Amino acid sequence: MLKEKVYIVKIGGNIIDDESRLNQFLKDFSLIKGKKILIHGGGKLTTQLAEKLEIPQQMVDGRRITDSETLKIATMVYAGYCNKNIVAQLQAENINAIGLSGADANVIQSTKRNHPTIDYGFVGDVSISSINNQFITTLLDNELVPVFCAITHDTKGQLLNTNADTIAQMVASSLANKYNISLYYCFEKKGVLTDINNEDSLILEIDTADFEDLKQKEIIHSGMLPKLENAFTSIDSGVKEVVIIKENNLKKYIAKENAEATRIVRTRVKSAL
Amino acid sequence: MLKEKVYIVKIGGNIIDDESRLNQFLKDFSLIKGKKILIHGGGKLTTQLAEKLEIPQQMVDGRRITDSETLKIATMVYAGYCNKNIVAQLQAENINAIGLSGADANVIQSTKRNHPTIDYGFVGDVSISSINNQFITTLLDNELVPVFCAITHDTKGQLLNTNADTIAQMVASSLANKYNISLYYCFEKKGVLTDINNEDSLILEIDTADFEDLKQKEIIHSGMLPKLENAFTSIDSGVKEVVIIKENNLKKYIAKENAEATRIVRTRVKSAL
Repeated sequence: MLKEKVYIVKIGGNIIDDESRLNQFLKDFSLIKGKKILIHGGGKLTTQLAEKLEIPQQMVDGRRITDSETLKIATMVYAGYCNKNIVAQLQAENINAIGLSGADANVIQSTKRNHPTIDYGFVGDVSISSINNQFITTLLDNELVPVFCAITHDTKGQLLNTNADTIAQMVASSLANKYNISLYYCFEKKGVLTDINNEDSLILEIDTADFEDLKQKEIIHSGMLPKLENAFTSIDSGVKEVVIIKENNLKKYIAKENAEATRIVRTRVKSAL
Repeated sequence: MLKEKVYIVKIGGNIIDDESRLNQFLKDFSLIKGKKILIHGGGKLTTQLAEKLEIPQQMVDGRRITDSETLKIATMVYAGYCNKNIVAQLQAENINAIGLSGADANVIQSTKRNHPTIDYGFVGDVSISSINNQFITTLLDNELVPVFCAITHDTKGQLLNTNADTIAQMVASSLANKYNISLYYCFEKKGVLTDINNEDSLILEIDTADFEDLKQKEIIHSGMLPKLENAFTSIDSGVKEVVIIKENNLKKYIAKENAEATRIVRTRVKSAL
């Protein structure tokens, strides 16, 4: 049986912080036909607000330590300010969006990270069984568009800060059995670049072998590494299409209008590197 | 045909600011059997945060003027911090709560207040037709417990700050045709007092004539006036029971265990004043 299509779009990076760019992206997202889901990060507003409130931000290996005060701010910014403004703008585009944290309808459970040496604080890790895909399916069947922020809960009353890229992957993977899923990671770069300062160094297609090679040569590092790991996990769990793309190319790409992006595949047919 | 019962509880005042008191209230609320809805205010956190961020707060006739910076904070506090923590705590009590602003699923629309002399800023007024009672019914039928914060939207992309007491009344009134609604306004006082500093001055029952009398004698004023006006509007629109009650008496009152409160009725049978 032919599976119904669902588009899952993750938006992050600097786009969340740029009002007019976010607004244009939301207009483009609204035009995607059929069932769709949006997952958003929180931009720099959390850090800015923490600075203004003089709450010191601790970073370990480029990751923020989420102490209780930082969690409070993240909850305000992600689940409050960002999520509700995105939902209101989508409603203005006649999209029946519904904003959700993981606590709402118990839609995404997580477990407080238990790291042997580093205390990440109130950070939640998710697995595929964390996702209440039945509830998401009910929303989609009622023509609602779920908009997820990256705040989850442990089911015992504790909210937890969670990586939005990982949430996108888990939601995609959890729905892959029922739907034909396309997962788009949208951000401010054209895709995966071999030289982060040169948009012409875009890699059009990456497979598992390429990824290992790129990692070994240290061409891919920092934030792109976990993003690609999420992308490959999605592919491995049955997600049909995974693309890393500049947010303003999304509309063209979906319309197959020759927009550039990085396509994640299990095994490439021919070299694109 | 016998209508199914729905409990609508509004929680506000100082309880939102008092973590252990809020937690106990949420435990009590969880024990209410059957369909239920929670509406919450925002407490003093918005004012506190505005002070810390040095955003001046303008008040006219005891009402906050919601400028764009204050709306941003209110959205963060009400729709983010308060709403998601309440939902997470209810989930911990095995209540399948879902937190909503008015923008989510277009559940509560509002109109920016247009006052002849005062610019209230980003304040939204709601009417009974603002409420998407079909969506609320769908949630209730799926054993979900809606938790509303007092942020609504104008359907054109603008979030608006709305009075939580009024939202409670409008939600109750909009569902009165289908359900047997009990509406409880919970706060830190025993109910309506003739002397605000004396808990023994509780009025057990108020009807329309009493209300006019109390208003004329200026026994009721400030915040209690709009609360009572909302209460009478609810009764007039078919809400079966409206009670103003101290939050820690709610459980006993519902169990008919002789807890004191103020009952709002159209016409009293005998004098209770």
